[in-house]
Amino acid sequence: MQRIGFIGTGVMGTGIINNLLGAGYEVTVYNRTKAHAQAVLDRGARWAETPAKVAADTAITMSMVGFPQDVENIYFGDDGILAGAEPGQLVVDMTTSTPTLARKITAAAGERGVVALDAPVSGGDVGAKNGTLTVMVGGDAAAMATLQPIFDVIAGSVHRFGEAGMGQHAKMANQIMIAGTMTGLTEMLVYALATGLALNDVLATVGAGSAANWSLDNYGPRVLKGDYTPGFFAKHFLKDLRIALDEADKIGLDLPATQTAKRLYERLVDAGHGDDGTQALVKIYTAWTK
Amino acid sequence: MQRIGFIGTGVMGTGIINNLLGAGYEVTVYNRTKAHAQAVLDRGARWAETPAKVAADTAITMSMVGFPQDVENIYFGDDGILAGAEPGQLVVDMTTSTPTLARKITAAAGERGVVALDAPVSGGDVGAKNGTLTVMVGGDAAAMATLQPIFDVIAGSVHRFGEAGMGQHAKMANQIMIAGTMTGLTEMLVYALATGLALNDVLATVGAGSAANWSLDNYGPRVLKGDYTPGFFAKHFLKDLRIALDEADKIGLDLPATQTAKRLYERLVDAGHGDDGTQALVKIYTAWTK
Repeated sequence: MQRIGFIGTGVMGTGIINNLLGAGYEVTVYNRTKAHAQAVLDRGARWAETPAKVAADTAITMSMVGFPQDVENIYFGDDGILAGAEPGQLVVDMTTSTPTLARKITAAAGERGVVALDAPVSGGDVGAKNGTLTVMVGGDAAAMATLQPIFDVIAGSVHRFGEAGMGQHAKMANQIMIAGTMTGLTEMLVYALATGLALNDVLATVGAGSAANWSLDNYGPRVLKGDYTPGFFAKHFLKDLRIALDEADKIGLDLPATQTAKRLYERLVDAGHGDDGTQALVKIYTAWTK
Repeated sequence: MQRIGFIGTGVMGTGIINNLLGAGYEVTVYNRTKAHAQAVLDRGARWAETPAKVAADTAITMSMVGFPQDVENIYFGDDGILAGAEPGQLVVDMTTSTPTLARKITAAAGERGVVALDAPVSGGDVGAKNGTLTVMVGGDAAAMATLQPIFDVIAGSVHRFGEAGMGQHAKMANQIMIAGTMTGLTEMLVYALATGLALNDVLATVGAGSAANWSLDNYGPRVLKGDYTPGFFAKHFLKDLRIALDEADKIGLDLPATQTAKRLYERLVDAGHGDDGTQALVKIYTAWTK
């Protein structure tokens, strides 16, 4: 069976790698902190000492790390993916990162005869674990077709939005929508608490009508239990909103609601809650915490 | 069969009245502009010349009008509901209005031996027409039980949130949530258009994942067709957000995301689009209209 490389064994990467192993693929992995790869190594993944060695060992190398700077490092470092990849190979970055960096990787890869795709996902830890991620692809259509059997293992839906960077743009659109559902949910709960409403009843009633949304259904009950464990890290969501607003700024686009969401998540992260889930946003409202 | 009074034959009132007539109730109506009552008069409703005469003609009087000032007028005017209501009667305001006014009506009604409920709804014109509204009740529990057979005709779900005004507070919580879904949807579409994404594909992909919400499903396709006909008037949504923020302000609660939504809808209404539906918010973004 085909061998696949995977850089990044965080919550998302671990879920994806486990599904690839379960489907019979051989997987070679690298992670900045090796200890965090132990779970997939125990399941049979092979360790490589650098991203370059992962790429040298496999015809298809995928990555999902934290921040754009991490993506820069694993692709362009001296021991990076592009240092190890051979002509004809495929590299796929699934990190939510900048459209600009996606185009830069594609261009640099192309100079080496390597094809690069940007393929950020939505669906969170549960989607990664269950193989039901939504994948938003930018880049070469033929390369995407080659990858389809792999996407079938890890995703429920895959759509190509255009050339390099367009997968990242689609993901930014997704995050802008979530900025709305998360800020709305948060301020709804804060208002409801402050005015003496029964919060469970508010979730049930509001969630049944024209205000219904995934965040309310999934995060509302967690907030009421005080469960702020991350389905999605607040620090990563803030990173995404910064990318979205930076891209908007480049084309002269003003997005006031998304800016407000970014400022609120900045306050949350600045207060030391970046490793909480996005549902922890209630914590910056004094009416919630007092 | 019981006779019910109904003040206000707008889109919402007309839908509700038609369902009451269809269930066999006799309905006596009043509307500021009589011509707008013609549809329900043609279906067999009886006309009364003033709100007071509606109340004098019926043991249960319901109302759904536009703004809190309209509610003030129909309850407290010389020819208002409370001038015509007799001890033992029930009055139910379904307008989305202020919790303060709801408590004022309940107190004034109580002095006359009349029981008043606040019972704002969600579900829009479609919910009113199909009898599937969600009703959020504040006020006397026994009165609510008396009204249950009527609610069964017009609503899919009814919940009591507490004493007078709490129905309005629950509705405000609902509108705060919708402020998030509408601003998120709008800025997502504006960003997607400006970055060259295929908007239908964005709606399909984003709507299938953790950004899923009712506004995206129902208003997204309308926006793409340039259909701004009101499911819910922008001017009424702005009124609701102002009430919510005014209530929040009274208790020292800062809701930055809801404030941003209010400012955006103010710009929309100030630009002359108050009679559009809430999905017309895209119109204030130059990237959408140019």
